[in-house]
Amino acid sequence: LKVRIGNEIKEYTSIWWNENNELQMIDQRQLPFSFEVYTAKTIDDVCYAIKEMVVRGAPLIGITGAYGLVLHASNFSRDDRGAFDREMQQGFQKLIQTRPTAVDLFNIQARMIKLLNSDQSVKDLQNQFFNYANQIKDEIVAECRKIGEIGNELITKDHTKIMTICNAGALATVDIGTALAPIRKAHQENKKLVVYVPETRPRIQGGRLTAWELENEGIDHLIIADSAMGYCIKEGLIDLVITGADRIGFNGDTANKIGTYSLSLLCKENNIPFYVAAPASTFDLVSSGESFVIEFRNEIEIKTALSIIDSNDKKPVRRIIHNINSKSYNPAFDITPHKNISGFITPKGLITPPFEKKIKEFFGK
Amino acid sequence: LKVRIGNEIKEYTSIWWNENNELQMIDQRQLPFSFEVYTAKTIDDVCYAIKEMVVRGAPLIGITGAYGLVLHASNFSRDDRGAFDREMQQGFQKLIQTRPTAVDLFNIQARMIKLLNSDQSVKDLQNQFFNYANQIKDEIVAECRKIGEIGNELITKDHTKIMTICNAGALATVDIGTALAPIRKAHQENKKLVVYVPETRPRIQGGRLTAWELENEGIDHLIIADSAMGYCIKEGLIDLVITGADRIGFNGDTANKIGTYSLSLLCKENNIPFYVAAPASTFDLVSSGESFVIEFRNEIEIKTALSIIDSNDKKPVRRIIHNINSKSYNPAFDITPHKNISGFITPKGLITPPFEKKIKEFFGK
Repeated sequence: LKVRIGNEIKEYTSIWWNENNELQMIDQRQLPFSFEVYTAKTIDDVCYAIKEMVVRGAPLIGITGAYGLVLHASNFSRDDRGAFDREMQQGFQKLIQTRPTAVDLFNIQARMIKLLNSDQSVKDLQNQFFNYANQIKDEIVAECRKIGEIGNELITKDHTKIMTICNAGALATVDIGTALAPIRKAHQENKKLVVYVPETRPRIQGGRLTAWELENEGIDHLIIADSAMGYCIKEGLIDLVITGADRIGFNGDTANKIGTYSLSLLCKENNIPFYVAAPASTFDLVSSGESFVIEFRNEIEIKTALSIIDSNDKKPVRRIIHNINSKSYNPAFDITPHKNISGFITPKGLITPPFEKKIKEFFGK
Repeated sequence: LKVRIGNEIKEYTSIWWNENNELQMIDQRQLPFSFEVYTAKTIDDVCYAIKEMVVRGAPLIGITGAYGLVLHASNFSRDDRGAFDREMQQGFQKLIQTRPTAVDLFNIQARMIKLLNSDQSVKDLQNQFFNYANQIKDEIVAECRKIGEIGNELITKDHTKIMTICNAGALATVDIGTALAPIRKAHQENKKLVVYVPETRPRIQGGRLTAWELENEGIDHLIIADSAMGYCIKEGLIDLVITGADRIGFNGDTANKIGTYSLSLLCKENNIPFYVAAPASTFDLVSSGESFVIEFRNEIEIKTALSIIDSNDKKPVRRIIHNINSKSYNPAFDITPHKNISGFITPKGLITPPFEKKIKEFFGK
């Protein structure tokens, strides 16, 4: 993840463990207007970071949660396995309740908490939690790289005008991204891309985060109003759509950022390929779309937008953009039925319809 | 049109002729944060008002243009019919070039300019332009009232959750509105309505103007992100969609605010009735969708949003909400193919498919 600060470009990951045994992460709430680092010392700091969207993106909140358990384990100072286990289970419950839709959070925490199944000492387990979080983090980075390679094959000479929604980039993972991984890879191979970026109201992850990542990578892009997706798809401006995902059911039904369902329908109607890119942790082998829980967020997100006055303004302010006495309604995700999806770009390979058998083969136990 | 200023509610129309022979209009650019009146004394003031969206909405810009010709006629001070006619033709050309998509502007100006076909004196024609503009304005108000009555019949006990896009209210016409006319009428009859209002980026005519009109009328409503239209339609939260239109072709193809096409497709997929409400002036008897010209507006609209800091802030400021170095792409309208439309609510009656014969019968010469 390239970050331009002033005239310098530095390499970052979205999250890292520092020398003081703290968890640090790029604070995504005020990006790209202000670049700040958030430091978490406790599991409560981590829950706050996930709930308030200091970090967001299904794989990243999964990893952040894993380090939340690491912090929680490290902060336990007695040699009492029973008490330790109870504390860790409480931490696990707290974490998985922060945000309901993204399944990576649950899947990764469920893997982490299984470490309690051994009869090691508290001290050994504290080390194991740390090592396992690092391992899962490295897995996600490797999976994103693989997604990049596989997805890049879809970006041919005639398929270089790509639309993505929200941010499924390095900022939604640890590095590279899911939907942005094939785009990064294609750019490295000098394919001439144009990426159409719906701004993604209400939190503007497209206009703030994806646009910022693409600018830093030097990839051509155009921000559009979310409601212009239809025009762009129908007028043939788009060759290929690649989105991320927050939860993919065993049959391919996919929860993702609000608006993704409409985009999938537009693609289906206009015969534009619609792909979903995701790592293993985003697959939910026990559910289909009907049972996905959709998160509703505070209506203040709809009523306001984070804004600056000019390029020198480093203190973005959330300001009101709607009729002030009106109420809002703010579902954060929607569900794309599997029939609208051309395929899944996964680290195990491309999955095309029918999805169910392949999803179970690739990601079942 | 009820306008709440402080604690008082006053009756307004969106546009009026004042005692000093000037054209006045509610300045819609800063509504609802700041209520200001714009005064036009020349045709250039009128062209500015249309281009810069002091006024907007297809029927209203048609009427505003008509009064632009009235001002232009009145400002001509010689008794020279030849020169007068040339001036008026130039004014006509200037006006119809301000905004390309809404056909009302052309249709109404074309009616006005035909007054030149008589051999009356300049002075008589000046009066005629004024009288004819008033007549067309009154026609639009009467047509909107009729649209309200006819559309109200679609709002039954089981069809009270209504979505509209952009603003097709009193602010888009002279009074009452097109899409909002049935909603106003149903509310007067004490039907228990909830209106879902997509904010309508980039200029937020939903979140600013429609929400404000509905609040002033005391009609329950919820603002949503434009990308939440899919969720609301698919989850069965909406019984009925009514939109306005900027141009309706002879076959029913309809240009309207960007996002309308997606909304129509969502309705078709989920079997939700999708109606378009429009007066006679919005019908284009010579074109179908393929030949409609779509207006592209400045990318600054996409990059920014008009905002206030709190309810006491009467000086809204346009602030940047996107990654500052990114470019944007800003089509202002899209085209809904007639096959996605359940019917047209017109002053002559409801038009259901097949549309072409009825449209020609109702609105052909």
